[in-house]
Amino acid sequence: MTDPAAFTSDDYAARMTRAADAAAAAGLAGVLVAPGPDLSWLTGYRPTAITERLTLLILRPGKAPVLMVPALERPDAEAAAGAPALEMRDWRDGDNPYAGVAPLLGNRGAFGMSDTTWALHLLGLQRTLPELRFTALTDGLPMLRAVKDAHELARLAGAGAAADEAYGEIVGVAFAGRRELDVAADLAGLLRKFGHEQVDFTVVGSGPNGANPHHEAGERVIQDGDTVVLDFGGLRHGYGSDTTRTVHVGEPGEEVRKVHDIVREAQQAAFEAVRPGVACEEIDRVARRVITEAGYGEWFIHRTGHGIGVTTHEPPYMVEGEKQPLVPGMCFSIEPGIYLPGRFGVRIEDIVTVTPEGGRRLNNTDRELRIVR
Amino acid sequence: MTDPAAFTSDDYAARMTRAADAAAAAGLAGVLVAPGPDLSWLTGYRPTAITERLTLLILRPGKAPVLMVPALERPDAEAAAGAPALEMRDWRDGDNPYAGVAPLLGNRGAFGMSDTTWALHLLGLQRTLPELRFTALTDGLPMLRAVKDAHELARLAGAGAAADEAYGEIVGVAFAGRRELDVAADLAGLLRKFGHEQVDFTVVGSGPNGANPHHEAGERVIQDGDTVVLDFGGLRHGYGSDTTRTVHVGEPGEEVRKVHDIVREAQQAAFEAVRPGVACEEIDRVARRVITEAGYGEWFIHRTGHGIGVTTHEPPYMVEGEKQPLVPGMCFSIEPGIYLPGRFGVRIEDIVTVTPEGGRRLNNTDRELRIVR
Repeated sequence: MTDPAAFTSDDYAARMTRAADAAAAAGLAGVLVAPGPDLSWLTGYRPTAITERLTLLILRPGKAPVLMVPALERPDAEAAAGAPALEMRDWRDGDNPYAGVAPLLGNRGAFGMSDTTWALHLLGLQRTLPELRFTALTDGLPMLRAVKDAHELARLAGAGAAADEAYGEIVGVAFAGRRELDVAADLAGLLRKFGHEQVDFTVVGSGPNGANPHHEAGERVIQDGDTVVLDFGGLRHGYGSDTTRTVHVGEPGEEVRKVHDIVREAQQAAFEAVRPGVACEEIDRVARRVITEAGYGEWFIHRTGHGIGVTTHEPPYMVEGEKQPLVPGMCFSIEPGIYLPGRFGVRIEDIVTVTPEGGRRLNNTDRELRIVR
Repeated sequence: MTDPAAFTSDDYAARMTRAADAAAAAGLAGVLVAPGPDLSWLTGYRPTAITERLTLLILRPGKAPVLMVPALERPDAEAAAGAPALEMRDWRDGDNPYAGVAPLLGNRGAFGMSDTTWALHLLGLQRTLPELRFTALTDGLPMLRAVKDAHELARLAGAGAAADEAYGEIVGVAFAGRRELDVAADLAGLLRKFGHEQVDFTVVGSGPNGANPHHEAGERVIQDGDTVVLDFGGLRHGYGSDTTRTVHVGEPGEEVRKVHDIVREAQQAAFEAVRPGVACEEIDRVARRVITEAGYGEWFIHRTGHGIGVTTHEPPYMVEGEKQPLVPGMCFSIEPGIYLPGRFGVRIEDIVTVTPEGGRRLNNTDRELRIVR
């Protein structure tokens, strides 16, 4: 895999224009973005720390994007790849930064606000501009980053392929007799070996720990006869991977095989339901129906999937109530699971992208129940 | 240095009661806390990831604290040290978590909201409970975590002493001919060697890079004759360190000596001004006056200090406009600097705590201009 070309100032300018236009189409006066994944996606700027000092990107249809930054962070902001497309303004400690941005926002209408903006800043803006309304980007422009262009898709496919290579090697390591944390460290090393610059999670849920879908990895020593959930991912060239396979130490019993088959069938059915125009909630329903009909519905305790891009969790969400239709270029996880408290869990997850013809998996390792040692 | 005892469920219960009482005294109906430093300080709970799924601590005077968590994160939350003092409730994907907490909040009055709560969640609560008002904790209860008890002070003193030991060793390494990044890696290693579990920043600002107070460390190779700003810190046993010294590679010239003397004098004057009852802004003014009278006022481009505790940046802020009087037990930085663009910078920083008699430094290394090689 060769390295993708870096995004240019023109790429970022195009994204900012797209965001401002989408805001106008949604009836918003503009978009406000604090440090976090939206800001890095729109400008390439990723401050070294997210702090109480306001940094805010202001996008308005038909106007140049403005980045308000603390004076002492301005040199860093000016070094960002998207900086040439920005009008930069700064403020100093002791100034009121909310008053500083007020003239840019006017006093009418609603602005979309990046989800991760601190409440401190939103409340500061609301206090300064009581006539303005605000809506979270997930609510107001949920699909802003959801449809990936070809360059982004290539990066996501590369991240997925790298995660697959990591899986290919992890099934060869010793499980029985080692702690979950040791296998997790192996997984992190493999993700880095295959090009990830950031490891976000390396879940190793053995035996009863696998029944807690949010368990990471702990001191438990893996036993012969354990089912082990492996869920791992991170960022490679700035884009995310996230895949889950469930393996078994030694020969599995009948119930584990049965539960694994049900989850695999649910995952396959949801994958086959992917096509443009289908509502996100339908993907959840399809997976859930398979598991419910098999009698395990109450043990599938989370949604079926989430979007992925410059973060490993973002819209669109495959969850009941999400009416958003699928659009070619969207990328998200399909990850049904069954969790039997105190006993074991099974989850199978691939990243899938929507094409005009249907779904395409970005993870392509074997979904059978793999036996490890 | 021996390890401090872990905080107990009773410690966390006492903090939550204190917070609810402080809210009542400030005329607030309660306090709402999302994952972040306030939540870990109040409950010991630090979720593995901060996500779009709502986790919210609800504190109301005279009522038991409630923690609303996503169902799949409940086992982790129940493992937190403060969990026995909490009433735990959960919600599942597809539920509306804002509607879930609404009955606990009523429809009157104002709630303090942790600064770092995502705008997504604040907007969700505002939409669900339009009659409620919200204020950031920094505005509504700015001093909630500001006054440290004896156990916290011991941890902060231990973190400061460990940072001082790191400084004691870093002045012995080679600077000239090595990249800033190499010296920064040495600093990170030393912080860990002396007991830090988390390194937050290792600024190495050599020559002109020292004139950018937010520069971290880069590829620049340090030269003989460079002034080098070293600003480093992190968490040790959960509490922060943060200290800055400016060193010189080889013999400094007259101007560097002069600027360093002015900054040292400003830092000393601000330290001597610390005593209970003095307003925070006065500490800033004292430092600024020294630098302004020496003719460098326009090159001191940031506030004089910030509080420190379970984070390395928190109230109280030593900044013009902050009228909060100092109270024994507060801990904050005093860190004046002079930044000459394109040339060099000087900053000197100690953490200081307020005692009934005045200030006490938690950093005690030499503040002279040290010559390194």
